[in-house]
Amino acid sequence: MESIKIALLGLGNVGSGVWQILQRSGDQIALRAGVPLEIGGILVRSVDKPRQVNPDPSLLTTDAYTLLNDPTMPIVVETIGCPDGSTEPALSYILHALRAGKNVVTANKEVLAKHAKELSAALAQGRGGLYFEASVAGGIPIIKALRESLAANRVQALMGIINGTTNYMLTKMASEKSSFASVLAEAQACGYAEADPTSDVEGHDAAYKLAILSSLAFGVEIEIDDIYREGITRITPVDLEYAQELGMVIKLLAIAKEENGTIEARVHPTMIPASHPLANVSDVFNAVFVQGDAVGDLMFYGRGAGSLPTGSAVVADCIDAARSLRSGVRLPLSVPLKRKALLPIEDTVSRYYIHTRVIDRPGVLAAIATIFGEADVSIESVIQKGQHRQDPVSLVFVTHLVKERNVRSALSRIRNLSVVREISNVIRVEGE
Amino acid sequence: MESIKIALLGLGNVGSGVWQILQRSGDQIALRAGVPLEIGGILVRSVDKPRQVNPDPSLLTTDAYTLLNDPTMPIVVETIGCPDGSTEPALSYILHALRAGKNVVTANKEVLAKHAKELSAALAQGRGGLYFEASVAGGIPIIKALRESLAANRVQALMGIINGTTNYMLTKMASEKSSFASVLAEAQACGYAEADPTSDVEGHDAAYKLAILSSLAFGVEIEIDDIYREGITRITPVDLEYAQELGMVIKLLAIAKEENGTIEARVHPTMIPASHPLANVSDVFNAVFVQGDAVGDLMFYGRGAGSLPTGSAVVADCIDAARSLRSGVRLPLSVPLKRKALLPIEDTVSRYYIHTRVIDRPGVLAAIATIFGEADVSIESVIQKGQHRQDPVSLVFVTHLVKERNVRSALSRIRNLSVVREISNVIRVEGE
Repeated sequence: MESIKIALLGLGNVGSGVWQILQRSGDQIALRAGVPLEIGGILVRSVDKPRQVNPDPSLLTTDAYTLLNDPTMPIVVETIGCPDGSTEPALSYILHALRAGKNVVTANKEVLAKHAKELSAALAQGRGGLYFEASVAGGIPIIKALRESLAANRVQALMGIINGTTNYMLTKMASEKSSFASVLAEAQACGYAEADPTSDVEGHDAAYKLAILSSLAFGVEIEIDDIYREGITRITPVDLEYAQELGMVIKLLAIAKEENGTIEARVHPTMIPASHPLANVSDVFNAVFVQGDAVGDLMFYGRGAGSLPTGSAVVADCIDAARSLRSGVRLPLSVPLKRKALLPIEDTVSRYYIHTRVIDRPGVLAAIATIFGEADVSIESVIQKGQHRQDPVSLVFVTHLVKERNVRSALSRIRNLSVVREISNVIRVEGE
Repeated sequence: MESIKIALLGLGNVGSGVWQILQRSGDQIALRAGVPLEIGGILVRSVDKPRQVNPDPSLLTTDAYTLLNDPTMPIVVETIGCPDGSTEPALSYILHALRAGKNVVTANKEVLAKHAKELSAALAQGRGGLYFEASVAGGIPIIKALRESLAANRVQALMGIINGTTNYMLTKMASEKSSFASVLAEAQACGYAEADPTSDVEGHDAAYKLAILSSLAFGVEIEIDDIYREGITRITPVDLEYAQELGMVIKLLAIAKEENGTIEARVHPTMIPASHPLANVSDVFNAVFVQGDAVGDLMFYGRGAGSLPTGSAVVADCIDAARSLRSGVRLPLSVPLKRKALLPIEDTVSRYYIHTRVIDRPGVLAAIATIFGEADVSIESVIQKGQHRQDPVSLVFVTHLVKERNVRSALSRIRNLSVVREISNVIRVEGE
């Protein structure tokens, strides 16, 4: 049987994984795809560079368009990423291939999150297919789950741990009671965090992925800049200790919800009960928790990154693309997306952990509680400790469900009380 | 656009869920399927019986073959199950529909596990499709994951909590320190356990599902009676307490592994570390943990039963079937199965928790340890407690990895020692 040829763009971490999997499991993949899959050519930046895998040198080229225009390669796999912080040249390559009617498989979350509209147009023009299982949560098949397995559900909410670096750091900070800075240095030394960790620790990476998940879950197009975003830089060992005392853990969650046609999407550190299925997702592992109106609670757990896990998702997409090519039918069918504004963060409803530092004198609690009451912020629990400590002391509140606007309004007044030294941290509480 | 009609067999728990989902999410389902899905007729045992859902009475019929032979209904959904402990009439209906080239969607684990060969033959004859996402773990999309998302992987192992009744019971026994009998009575009162609980508590239900999962994971045909099976009836609160002391929990696991072309498949109570992702799967929830050679560890978690969760999986299959009908291509492609014998349980390797009851006198430990040593059973830890208790006392061993044959041989000699009153329990330990 004739094979289907793949143009592989990039031979870095993910590209090497794709190569390795196709080499070692080629027979099985041919059986599942109904046809052998073969790499027809590989785009690299330098032909001579030493690499972790060694394809026949005749496959390597530095000329992208030779591959992209080759009519014998109907599948294009883009694994270049955005190494220099730019979506180019990956975006141009993907658009070119889509317009030419190719089936494109990509792991590029940034291109997908920032350029959904151009991708849709190119896809419509070329009538090829766009597959991106590997763009979110590595080897976890969450894209196919949302596109196909949950097709009969209205997704009500999803909450994901979809950035492995920050999950590793928060796990370490909690278990070793270490500071953000020291754990970051450790993560950088292990290669889990980049030299410039901004994209991870400030939640940009998670926001790209949340844009992709939300668009599939709710069938809408989301502007990446509309997603509210807070990173983990302000989390301290003290907050992690209070979380533990409250029976909670702190995770960087990407959250999206739909209620009565209103959609919210936000990335921020979140306290969740220690008994929640997401609470035990440790180290670099990822997980996505989904609530559907029919299926109820679901969770998908696995490795969110790495050469072979991500390669596993890319090759699964190639198999789907090959099946689609053989059948002559575009699969999966795409659902038309409509542009949708998100609920402003001030209008979202959550519970809040509020850590204040106050002068320890009579009446302080009453003064703060009065302000909360006047702003309609109902308090569920208070932790006040250490009467004999030096001022200021920590006074921690956990609220009931309340609109963020009310919390902000109360805090702006509380901050001005003469007995209040600072609002050390405000962390949303979810999952109950 | 013309709709695709579905013949729905059965309007019980699952059938009602399918009906409800198609009613309330019809528009979204049409968008995802590319065509509206419509129930064309419903097979019931009695037309007049009061029900939880109320379709137009003209849709109801007691004549299966009128529906099965209706050329306007290319999709047949079988939700009859095996209510009287027999695979008939469900099996005959499914075979008839498959031979006629219909796309059959079923949740019937027992038919699938017991009659794989006849189903394959009927499928080949009719060139229709067979979809069974709902047969294992309700709304969790584990079948599609194994068939499609993990297509590039060799599955090395899978371990599942795939029976909600026993997981509910073990969760209750551990949290309330109650006996099997009292928790069973409670589960029966709540409707979580059947009046005759044999299929659940003896592991038959889990074994059917494991046969289905194993055949997909390893591409082999497995005889249901070849699966080693032990139920949870012998688990006592004392074992659960020892498990806790060892940092473990006890779950009824369905386990399948492939190593060097040899496959093992077994269902039995299993101790796993409290930190294992499966350990926190409580109550009626299900989860399947999979290890693939590329993807590494994955876990899928959700509701393993219930009208809407199971209906969600059935309707997702209908959408896949509708897409396949529109494209004129059979999807998913089936992988040819070869019959494969399983590794005999005596040749499997595991760790073991062994709870003995002995007379508390000097030399007992030495006598038992000597026999273990002679049988090449290496001991990892021993718990001996309560010198001042009445005889007999509990003496608990946990072994290192060892072949089951050696454990059995040692235990047959230990049982005969005059100081040993009984071997109270032997529980396999996995997951490290």
